[in-house]
Amino acid sequence: MNESQAGTRHSAQSSCSRASRCLIFGDASVAQKVLTKDANVTSLGQLGWGVAVTLGVLVSGGVSGGHINPAVTVAMAVWGKHPWVKVPVYVIAQYLGAFMASSMVYAVYLNALDAFEPERSLATAGIFATYPGAMTASNGTLVTDFLSNGNGMGDQVVGTMLLLICVCAITDPRNMEVPKALIPLFVGFTVLNIGVCFGFNCGYAINPARDLAPRFFTLIAGWGEQTFTAGTFDGIAWWWVPLVGPHIGAVMGVGIYLLLIELHHPEAQEFS
Amino acid sequence: MNESQAGTRHSAQSSCSRASRCLIFGDASVAQKVLTKDANVTSLGQLGWGVAVTLGVLVSGGVSGGHINPAVTVAMAVWGKHPWVKVPVYVIAQYLGAFMASSMVYAVYLNALDAFEPERSLATAGIFATYPGAMTASNGTLVTDFLSNGNGMGDQVVGTMLLLICVCAITDPRNMEVPKALIPLFVGFTVLNIGVCFGFNCGYAINPARDLAPRFFTLIAGWGEQTFTAGTFDGIAWWWVPLVGPHIGAVMGVGIYLLLIELHHPEAQEFS
Amino acid sequence: MNESQAGTRHSAQSSCSRASRCLIFGDASVAQKVLTKDANVTSLGQLGWGVAVTLGVLVSGGVSGGHINPAVTVAMAVWGKHPWVKVPVYVIAQYLGAFMASSMVYAVYLNALDAFEPERSLATAGIFATYPGAMTASNGTLVTDFLSNGNGMGDQVVGTMLLLICVCAITDPRNMEVPKALIPLFVGFTVLNIGVCFGFNCGYAINPARDLAPRFFTLIAGWGEQTFTAGTFDGIAWWWVPLVGPHIGAVMGVGIYLLLIELHHPEAQEFS
Amino acid sequence: MNESQAGTRHSAQSSCSRASRCLIFGDASVAQKVLTKDANVTSLGQLGWGVAVTLGVLVSGGVSGGHINPAVTVAMAVWGKHPWVKVPVYVIAQYLGAFMASSMVYAVYLNALDAFEPERSLATAGIFATYPGAMTASNGTLVTDFLSNGNGMGDQVVGTMLLLICVCAITDPRNMEVPKALIPLFVGFTVLNIGVCFGFNCGYAINPARDLAPRFFTLIAGWGEQTFTAGTFDGIAWWWVPLVGPHIGAVMGVGIYLLLIELHHPEAQEFS
Repeated sequence: MNESQAGTRHSAQSSCSRASRCLIFGDASVAQKVLTKDANVTSLGQLGWGVAVTLGVLVSGGVSGGHINPAVTVAMAVWGKHPWVKVPVYVIAQYLGAFMASSMVYAVYLNALDAFEPERSLATAGIFATYPGAMTASNGTLVTDFLSNGNGMGDQVVGTMLLLICVCAITDPRNMEVPKALIPLFVGFTVLNIGVCFGFNCGYAINPARDLAPRFFTLIAGWGEQTFTAGTFDGIAWWWVPLVGPHIGAVMGVGIYLLLIELHHPEAQEFS
Repeated sequence: MNESQAGTRHSAQSSCSRASRCLIFGDASVAQKVLTKDANVTSLGQLGWGVAVTLGVLVSGGVSGGHINPAVTVAMAVWGKHPWVKVPVYVIAQYLGAFMASSMVYAVYLNALDAFEPERSLATAGIFATYPGAMTASNGTLVTDFLSNGNGMGDQVVGTMLLLICVCAITDPRNMEVPKALIPLFVGFTVLNIGVCFGFNCGYAINPARDLAPRFFTLIAGWGEQTFTAGTFDGIAWWWVPLVGPHIGAVMGVGIYLLLIELHHPEAQEFS
Repeated sequence: MNESQAGTRHSAQSSCSRASRCLIFGDASVAQKVLTKDANVTSLGQLGWGVAVTLGVLVSGGVSGGHINPAVTVAMAVWGKHPWVKVPVYVIAQYLGAFMASSMVYAVYLNALDAFEPERSLATAGIFATYPGAMTASNGTLVTDFLSNGNGMGDQVVGTMLLLICVCAITDPRNMEVPKALIPLFVGFTVLNIGVCFGFNCGYAINPARDLAPRFFTLIAGWGEQTFTAGTFDGIAWWWVPLVGPHIGAVMGVGIYLLLIELHHPEAQEFS
Repeated sequence: MNESQAGTRHSAQSSCSRASRCLIFGDASVAQKVLTKDANVTSLGQLGWGVAVTLGVLVSGGVSGGHINPAVTVAMAVWGKHPWVKVPVYVIAQYLGAFMASSMVYAVYLNALDAFEPERSLATAGIFATYPGAMTASNGTLVTDFLSNGNGMGDQVVGTMLLLICVCAITDPRNMEVPKALIPLFVGFTVLNIGVCFGFNCGYAINPARDLAPRFFTLIAGWGEQTFTAGTFDGIAWWWVPLVGPHIGAVMGVGIYLLLIELHHPEAQEFS
């Protein structure tokens, strides 16, 4: 095994453990929110995800550049900012890490889940994966299934697009010169903000690994098929929306940043 | 087209896309708040605007110095800190960006808006532009239209004045030596703070583009004339207050900073 | 007028305007909280004071070292870290600034105050100065006047002592090497934390100027004598507690820091 | 007494006073939460602990490296990153500091505690030490004692393990190059996050000194034997879980960081 292979393996291990840690914090903060019946959509629970991302990037940013989201890794590869050869091992590590994190949160909150509901329902499935929400209309009617798959897809595309524009700006050395140690902080602020702004429709997955791997975990850990059939609208299931949407949005986000900002840096103008 | 023109055009594109992004986050956080009927005026929803400003300045601060507010751009030009020749293109970009952001938030929350109310009302118009609020008196009476236009104007002038004093301090290299990467953070704190302190009366527009462009959008997107006639007090409409007030306050704020702080820096004392 | 006098005058102007700005934000955040009847003691309203202090120190730290609290200024002078000759002008500026800030918040919220209550009561007086609170016992009884003057004095002494220990640590170049631009941030965190921890008893004045000057303002602006007679316990009025307590606590805090930390820095051990 | 002994004594004094200050803030924020009957588990009260840790590390990090947790000190010694000879004096100082902090919070809130409940109960004992909580099931039933000792132990092990992984990353100069002044901030974020994510089960002690010393204080200060008998499950008491769990989790956390991250730094690969 040569050094490059060792480097990739190391990065994959790190990516996996990092994604785990990030998910552990994120899922756990939602668990605490669901189990306490905190009805406030815009709440400190979102701080959990924001700070979790900060800490996830912080812990192993030095080894593998802080990739914890397959949508980010693939989009960077599409635009030539990340080697394609490293993508598969990164992505597998991200899914494995998310799966491990789900099982650890499940273990820590096992007593509480059993006390909360003997039969597992979507309410607690939402601790792990995302589902389109219900809402109360202005006249007080409860509206379930208000979100069409098309609108949900738009939500995921826009959310991840904004995430990537911000991530590109934060890590662009020619923009605001963010020092290495502050990158995790600003990425965490970005995720916090997307949560505060786009959590309402369907819970801002904006990361395929963070959504699909925990969904598989809940499928086999007692929640059953509802984890994949819930949110079906006009005969089309929900689960693939937070898988496909973030990948589309991420590619768009990096492209927009390159087009609008990076090409306009003074250094780049020499070539215009 | 010479390099200077190219630079201005680039800055304008950047200004526009940045203002869009900032508004997308800000409006969307209010959307989430309105749609969940979060009655708490001082809430995490304000975090949305604060962090949105942080990210807006962060993303394109490297290209055009982080101007996302016509009141700031014009006030800097009035006091000789920004070239007048660049003002029109900046301001147009700021209004266009705000309009684009409104339409994107509208698209992401279209299903939710339809589910919330079939007929668009001021409650959801307040997601996009600002309107003077209602309040509950100490004896429990609901008081609508408590805010006179004069008091609302004072609110906008004071809020924007404080914004500009802080922005001048944050970007003054002879004051606390804020590094480039932290400028977005401190400007975001400033806007968060103005929201926590001055959001009660009429929603702290403190930015003419952030208020008027979304107001036009809602006028043509189904809310109709109420967006311009609401808040009329003694026959005088409300909409021009968050347009004129911030410009007055911004000019005052920069002037006060120059008078009280910048002239007293040790270097400046050589000339006193 | 020689240069030193000019410097003192400049510092005083700056101190005054800075204290104003800080108070404007802080008082206004409480105004928003009171007027919306936010019953949550530990709330985002406290963010207002924390961030206000951050911005206050940030704006004019470069001119006069960020003094916005007479208790801090006097304590630093007592321990030989600030020239006594500058103390009077600083302190007068701090009281004037606090008075000006109160009047500006009063003006911005005049309509809202009138709508809230025709007769001014202690509820809105608490927007400006601090008063011992009421509380609900575990059995649901409302207990007013639970706080003795002695316990209130202890609260103010401990709160200001902790403030000064932290301020000394933050500004000590031999401790954690906090860069100049982050000093306002950490001081703001300190005040936020004291609010979260010690706001319950009597509203964490921890600053004589921030408390007494607004109390005078409310005395003459329509609230009347209750601003000085409220909270009288065993015939002893409350108003002098947040005036004297912070001065005692501040002197203790600087002394404790000198004793426990600063003397133990490696450089200092040469003399032990 | 030679210089090394003097250094250890100084560090111990500093450790003790630092742990005191940290606990004062942390306990006091819980006091404010309990006394205002804030039912929201994920609340700004957790900001208190997060910022308290930031300030605790900030104040004396320059003297003794910011050790305020025996689990951290012992785990660092186990993995050869801290001299064993300094462990006893550090740990004693940490327990003494926590005891002093409890008594100071008790003094500041004495009037309020007396007004809240004449007979001291577990509700206010939870201000000082941690106890497993009660919860409401999805059908509305109140479930007390839902947490088994095994699940509680897992909670403490996982929480402290994540704390140590983050602390190792934050202080690892080869990872994200966090400057000295930001270490307190990131450690504070970590504790905030553990509170948001793992406070539900049993209050995230994750620090034996922070839990056992205040438990002793409440034992002798009027709460009596219930402080050690509460939470007994299947005949086994609760109090030893937050004592033993953090030590196990901390050793695991440092080990995991060494295995997954530190060994993979480029410099370390020379030896692979």
